[in-house]
Amino acid sequence: MSFRIVTISREFGSGGHRIGKMVAEKLGIQYYDNELVTKIAEKSGFAQSFIQEHGEETNATNSLLFSLSNWGTYYNYTVSDQLYFAQRRVIEELANKAPCVIVGRCADYILRERTDCLNVFIHANMDFKRKRIIELYGEKGTNLDKKILEKDKRRKAYYKYYTNQSWGEALNYHLCLDSGIIGLEKCADVIAQLMG
Amino acid sequence: MSFRIVTISREFGSGGHRIGKMVAEKLGIQYYDNELVTKIAEKSGFAQSFIQEHGEETNATNSLLFSLSNWGTYYNYTVSDQLYFAQRRVIEELANKAPCVIVGRCADYILRERTDCLNVFIHANMDFKRKRIIELYGEKGTNLDKKILEKDKRRKAYYKYYTNQSWGEALNYHLCLDSGIIGLEKCADVIAQLMG
Repeated sequence: MSFRIVTISREFGSGGHRIGKMVAEKLGIQYYDNELVTKIAEKSGFAQSFIQEHGEETNATNSLLFSLSNWGTYYNYTVSDQLYFAQRRVIEELANKAPCVIVGRCADYILRERTDCLNVFIHANMDFKRKRIIELYGEKGTNLDKKILEKDKRRKAYYKYYTNQSWGEALNYHLCLDSGIIGLEKCADVIAQLMG
Repeated sequence: MSFRIVTISREFGSGGHRIGKMVAEKLGIQYYDNELVTKIAEKSGFAQSFIQEHGEETNATNSLLFSLSNWGTYYNYTVSDQLYFAQRRVIEELANKAPCVIVGRCADYILRERTDCLNVFIHANMDFKRKRIIELYGEKGTNLDKKILEKDKRRKAYYKYYTNQSWGEALNYHLCLDSGIIGLEKCADVIAQLMG
């Protein structure tokens, strides 16, 4: 099977963004993350910073499917729902346009009908993630591990809400990589090799 | 990090054995599966066929840890427990001896203290597994999907019993591969590349 698109789902701090960028550079294809945010903002009129903060998280406990089943009462759509629909349109268009790497945004689920997507999940142990986050973001404090877990918990809830799937389950991805053990560069090599 | 040993855990029918053999051939290292069975038989005196049938499955619902906690009453060890301990000794010796590929047998857990093991999980969708099993073993019948699921269910129970870990969870492996989507040869290439 030949792939045109890589979707990367990742634990916070595991280096998913860095790996995604390296893959895009190695293959000479587009990488979408912040740029995606900008496109969404343009499409939907939401302020860029609002999307950046809320684009992948939700405190919602209800199911979107439940909301959607109340057809004709689209007034029930939350801001988060509208964001999701806007993201979905953008991701579908980008995937049709040209080979690319897309990080997050439920891209693997949104593009699930395609046969040219390699869906990747990146994870690492807590020590590795903690060190990276301290280096990259200068985070300090005693509760960093808890914050890391909380961030992934919110990602998992967002993913579940909009897709009814389990974020992070091996069986739902074509490739899962422990970036702490394997290394970021080698993870990117593996992905690029499979795209070749 | 450099690896000497590959442990392969796999869903029934996903091609884990085939991939393991290809990796061993590409790298010029030993591959252990049936041969492992023979070594176990030699070490523990159990009949080879008995181990082949029961070496990875259990109907036990109790925890081995519970049994072990009753120190001094080793008379409680079942045949399955004795097999496990025999397998464990063999796997530890093989890992010390030379680089190798080991399929199944809770090898990833047994060798967990080592830093030179690449732990891999191979999975695939049901269509792919069903077709392979029909081709390889000439299985027929309407309940094949159910048999496949049952076999993995028993593997999962065996693994849980002896390791208290969850078989098949992405976070417990360095590399997970969907062999149906990626292809057996490419899976072997990925693994061999990481060992390089």
